Amino acid sequence: AAHGARKMEDYGRFLALLGSTLLVGFVSVVLSLVWVFHYREGLSWDGSPAEFNWHPVLVITGFVFIQGIAIIVYRLPWTWKCSKLLMKFIHAGLNTIAMILAIVSMVAVFDFHNAKNIPNMYSLHSWIGLTAVIFYSLQLFLGFAVFLLPFVPVHLRAVLMPIHVYSGLTIFATVIATALMGITEKLIFALKNPAYSASPPEATLVNCLGLLLVIFGSLILWMASRPHWKRPPAENAKILRPIGMTPEGTEVESTMTNSSNADKSDLRISTEAARKQNIKFDEAGQRSTM
Amino acid sequence: AAHGARKMEDYGRFLALLGSTLLVGFVSVVLSLVWVFHYREGLSWDGSPAEFNWHPVLVITGFVFIQGIAIIVYRLPWTWKCSKLLMKFIHAGLNTIAMILAIVSMVAVFDFHNAKNIPNMYSLHSWIGLTAVIFYSLQLFLGFAVFLLPFVPVHLRAVLMPIHVYSGLTIFATVIATALMGITEKLIFALKNPAYSASPPEATLVNCLGLLLVIFGSLILWMASRPHWKRPPAENAKILRPIGMTPEGTEVESTMTNSSNADKSDLRISTEAARKQNIKFDEAGQRSTM
Repeated sequence: AAHGARKMEDYGRFLALLGSTLLVGFVSVVLSLVWVFHYREGLSWDGSPAEFNWHPVLVITGFVFIQGIAIIVYRLPWTWKCSKLLMKFIHAGLNTIAMILAIVSMVAVFDFHNAKNIPNMYSLHSWIGLTAVIFYSLQLFLGFAVFLLPFVPVHLRAVLMPIHVYSGLTIFATVIATALMGITEKLIFALKNPAYSASPPEATLVNCLGLLLVIFGSLILWMASRPHWKRPPAENAKILRPIGMTPEGTEVESTMTNSSNADKSDLRISTEAARKQNIKFDEAGQRSTM
Repeated sequence: AAHGARKMEDYGRFLALLGSTLLVGFVSVVLSLVWVFHYREGLSWDGSPAEFNWHPVLVITGFVFIQGIAIIVYRLPWTWKCSKLLMKFIHAGLNTIAMILAIVSMVAVFDFHNAKNIPNMYSLHSWIGLTAVIFYSLQLFLGFAVFLLPFVPVHLRAVLMPIHVYSGLTIFATVIATALMGITEKLIFALKNPAYSASPPEATLVNCLGLLLVIFGSLILWMASRPHWKRPPAENAKILRPIGMTPEGTEVESTMTNSSNADKSDLRISTEAARKQNIKFDEAGQRSTM
């Protein structure tokens, strides 16, 4: 019973955090629209500044918010009854949508720059942003080839998974850093009389948007890196057997899921000694998490 | 013998990565000096732009490079024979130096702004930068109180360690993002005729500096998040015992170190089946890593 209560409490904490993350992401998207419609020229596709405005809106909606959701989609407990393959399609699908929006958002800037004879690709924002889009596309392509195509050996998937996870989170963090640079650029260029340094309401609003992006990113990274919030492995994938025994199942599914939850439920015995040991085990799992 | 060869290969890979990281960090510091001395007004402390120039130099040297080293100091294999307490002092000491340099770098900007009647704290760069310095100081203070003062219960340390690791890496990433915003601001403000958009040599140099900061950050995050590069736990801290057994040692040291290395050496048996199991176990550890 105590074990069940602990599990429910943990579930509640996950839901609260998920709710906050979605709220912060949603408010960020709304603020980007307020920025563009209330303080700027709105949205259109005619080479005017209103075309440029698609850039922040699509980046924040797609490259930040949707990418963030794609990262934590395996963590949603109500999806654990769905097949792993379905969840992989959802993960890949959300990332594809995010990539398309990121590319359209870049086209909007290039189009606007070309219409106004503003040089392309001179700023650090553009250098790092383009690098992020290229790595993101590579990550999506390789992720599809390695984890969705059926003929990749289990061994190779197991070797590449930590790299996939690391690059995914690093690209996500880089995208947010790039968005912050973009906000900085745009506020300096767009605000004249009163200037950015005079802190007009638009500057305050968009600075708050930047802060929200950092908070959103931090929340996603926290949720993605807690080992006890991972999707439980398939039943035949419990690998923490008495030392030397081979696991029963070695099929594809089992190498794609993390085994630490199963490990922990194996260890979760109701004596006090085992409880203490669990805490240490949790810690070990957590330390190996960021 | 095969096990030993695998270990040496892994050690070689670690050293190569450490060497690259140090090189990238060192070149970043050099580029910040080239920027300031070759393209800008050099360094002084007189309210002039040369006082401002301490800001990028000290941030890159202290808040990025030294903080990065502080993060991975437990990973250096030749320190594993040193006591954990000594390593904690080195970790805390390097972070203290980084904090002092970060604070001095902020004083330089405020001083320069006040001398020139430029408003303080209006930009997103300043908002997020100040937040990062405050969280960094808090992290250092709490880290000292929890992990160095002797009277904190082992249980509390175990609970707080994953939070300490997560906040440390998140603050580090935020500091790099803030540095990129700072570079963007400074290049836009400082480069007139030719402007930033005309890509003069200074712009290219400093854009490259920004790229190097991203690479440095990514390398540090990779090294910090590989479970098999962690400092091995104290000998009496092996906790992956047959289920239900209590670990032999519960003293302070054992809760501070990660047990996954010991886990793995326990598991490392020379049959093929065990080797396969190891790969999966490694993967489990790695997936719980970022």
